Amino acid sequence: MVNLELIKAIARRSPTKIVLVVIDGLGGLPNPGTGKTELETASTPNLNQLAANGICGLIDLVSPGITPGSAPGHLALFGHDPINFIIGRGVLEAVGIDFDLQSGDVAARGNFCTVDERGLVIDRRAGRISTDECAKLCQLLDGLVIDKVKFFVCPVREHRFVVVFRGDNLSPNVSDSDPQQIGVTPKIITALNPQAEKMAGIASRFIAKARGTLADHYPANMVLLRGFSQRPQLPTMGEVYKLKPAAIASYPMYRGLAKLVGMEALETGITIEDEFITLKRNYANYDFFFLHIKGADSAGEDGDFDRKVAIIEQVDTVLPHLLSVEPDVIVITGDHSTPALLKGHSWHPVPILLYSKWCRPDRVSEFSESACISGGLGRFPATQVMTLAMANALKLTKYGA
Amino acid sequence: MVNLELIKAIARRSPTKIVLVVIDGLGGLPNPGTGKTELETASTPNLNQLAANGICGLIDLVSPGITPGSAPGHLALFGHDPINFIIGRGVLEAVGIDFDLQSGDVAARGNFCTVDERGLVIDRRAGRISTDECAKLCQLLDGLVIDKVKFFVCPVREHRFVVVFRGDNLSPNVSDSDPQQIGVTPKIITALNPQAEKMAGIASRFIAKARGTLADHYPANMVLLRGFSQRPQLPTMGEVYKLKPAAIASYPMYRGLAKLVGMEALETGITIEDEFITLKRNYANYDFFFLHIKGADSAGEDGDFDRKVAIIEQVDTVLPHLLSVEPDVIVITGDHSTPALLKGHSWHPVPILLYSKWCRPDRVSEFSESACISGGLGRFPATQVMTLAMANALKLTKYGA
Repeated sequence: MVNLELIKAIARRSPTKIVLVVIDGLGGLPNPGTGKTELETASTPNLNQLAANGICGLIDLVSPGITPGSAPGHLALFGHDPINFIIGRGVLEAVGIDFDLQSGDVAARGNFCTVDERGLVIDRRAGRISTDECAKLCQLLDGLVIDKVKFFVCPVREHRFVVVFRGDNLSPNVSDSDPQQIGVTPKIITALNPQAEKMAGIASRFIAKARGTLADHYPANMVLLRGFSQRPQLPTMGEVYKLKPAAIASYPMYRGLAKLVGMEALETGITIEDEFITLKRNYANYDFFFLHIKGADSAGEDGDFDRKVAIIEQVDTVLPHLLSVEPDVIVITGDHSTPALLKGHSWHPVPILLYSKWCRPDRVSEFSESACISGGLGRFPATQVMTLAMANALKLTKYGA
Repeated sequence: MVNLELIKAIARRSPTKIVLVVIDGLGGLPNPGTGKTELETASTPNLNQLAANGICGLIDLVSPGITPGSAPGHLALFGHDPINFIIGRGVLEAVGIDFDLQSGDVAARGNFCTVDERGLVIDRRAGRISTDECAKLCQLLDGLVIDKVKFFVCPVREHRFVVVFRGDNLSPNVSDSDPQQIGVTPKIITALNPQAEKMAGIASRFIAKARGTLADHYPANMVLLRGFSQRPQLPTMGEVYKLKPAAIASYPMYRGLAKLVGMEALETGITIEDEFITLKRNYANYDFFFLHIKGADSAGEDGDFDRKVAIIEQVDTVLPHLLSVEPDVIVITGDHSTPALLKGHSWHPVPILLYSKWCRPDRVSEFSESACISGGLGRFPATQVMTLAMANALKLTKYGA
């Protein structure tokens, strides 16, 4: 993999613009009845036209055979090695609610849970209390300070919350308190190295404090924490690519991931068309756009083949909005496959289409898994996508004399 | 390359089963008369059917242009980087005769040779004495003990033998005694680092002892040693993949290689059909099978194009035995190419076929070098084969949040 220092050295500012459209969970598996995947079943005349004028291929987000989570999938598309840069559960939940994590903050994922009078966990989710109830309980804990460490406690959904610890010399290298089973006490948080002793102590005191505060709030009378983590020090897209990047994503987690690499998250409506209209309205102000479409993944996770087909067709229908602004480079791909047949993320490589005036078109004239096998881009690691986009935007100078 | 620590972290036990069939030296080159390789010439209806239902590609065992030995080829297929893990000549000979090498043992490849009255080597192979004679001479040296180091001296074939040194603090970092030429004395074994002084001394005393013992056994009146090496500390397939693996191989070297990565070597007959019947008989007891077919490589090495074709056809004929047990994942490939035209191993990438319920079939309907170029797996490093097999067996969980 070409490292980002090299890209940084040859990247240059220019007036050209790049649009990266990520159809979450795009790749699929054939419906046994028809032998066609979701993408192959969908009627996509605009995508096919773009494939005919562009160059296609297949990407591996992490490595062949590895099923990527959403964070590694997106990091790879943004050019970061998803094996070196790991985003912990706590950080992911925090960015997922648009929490403005600062360098040095430690975030943990929390569950409100139920313990019995002996202190044994009897429900790890406190009967899945409502999000409203969760918000009220979070207010009881939010803003506390212990030893100059401030706690931010923010509701996520149902029994889920995020706690962010802000103070000096905090380390994420502590164990979880969540035992991941019932009938036992919560685990004692311990330091995984000597530098984390302070954090382990503070987190334990937070939990003790929470237990006292929540004593009368059965079933949510205790908390479980896991996935202590810090915001990874990712080079920003401005630093690496000299881009002024914007993210258009109706789901907060993807806005959060984009912000981790220095993108500005634009306000947008929630439909696919809303997102494309947001792109048009803001087109003059940025030179890189990451546009994220969530629905295909959700349909795949639900095992709803037809709904995934319909979402892909919706993307195709609104594509003229994108074409109308005439981006110099258009990349359309996914962050992983989510075959409806598997009802979850999968390891299968993801179709990618790149269009630019300079792309050296291949013979592929259909945007599909099987057609992309023969594409001119071949099969390649997703960490190379940004380099290819930059090259096609004539934003990379020659390497070496 | 994804490292095995990552695979270890996401691997899970499950009831699904994987069968990896290695047709040794599978890849070939076209017969100038017909333009078809050995595999393309063979009539292989069963392999073609499996290719049509599965996904195909080409693998590089070490790296494009590098001709792999048998050990690197197999290590790569088992998921180990063949550049980091090197199996020395001594170890390879030892595992090749089913010698149970223990951690700490040092093995060297030996030749019985002929020296003249001045001590100059006049025949590095002692006139290629018979294997029986070799065995008798080995008995004279086997079991000696010097300074608490015990020697195991085992015949291989003709003038070749293995010597294994067992004792405390032995190091393989010593030079060879074999001068690789005649008309000179055997080289003095020297330590390549200070920790190896003991080993150099012991090996020299072994050679002096052997010279005395063999004095009256002209032409086999001396020994030459080379390739001092220790069993590499390879993570086992149980540790990495959480598999219970079995090897079915009629040639001892391949059983030995499989044992180095923790497989159990099953007793089997020597024909190809015997091996497939062994698979059926033991199918219930393991969840991973490595089935090795030697004949194609031997035919290639002999330059016998037609015999190689016939061996491949034999594999195709007995394939229904494999299909009858309905493995969740079937992988069929080779450990390197052995084109009959080259009479030896070669660097050409090797066709691979993967079949599973979840494999996302491509348009390839023939198992051959030229058809696999267009396969959905593309061209990829052999170290990824196990990851793909594990993914298709649904034995890997998602990577990252």
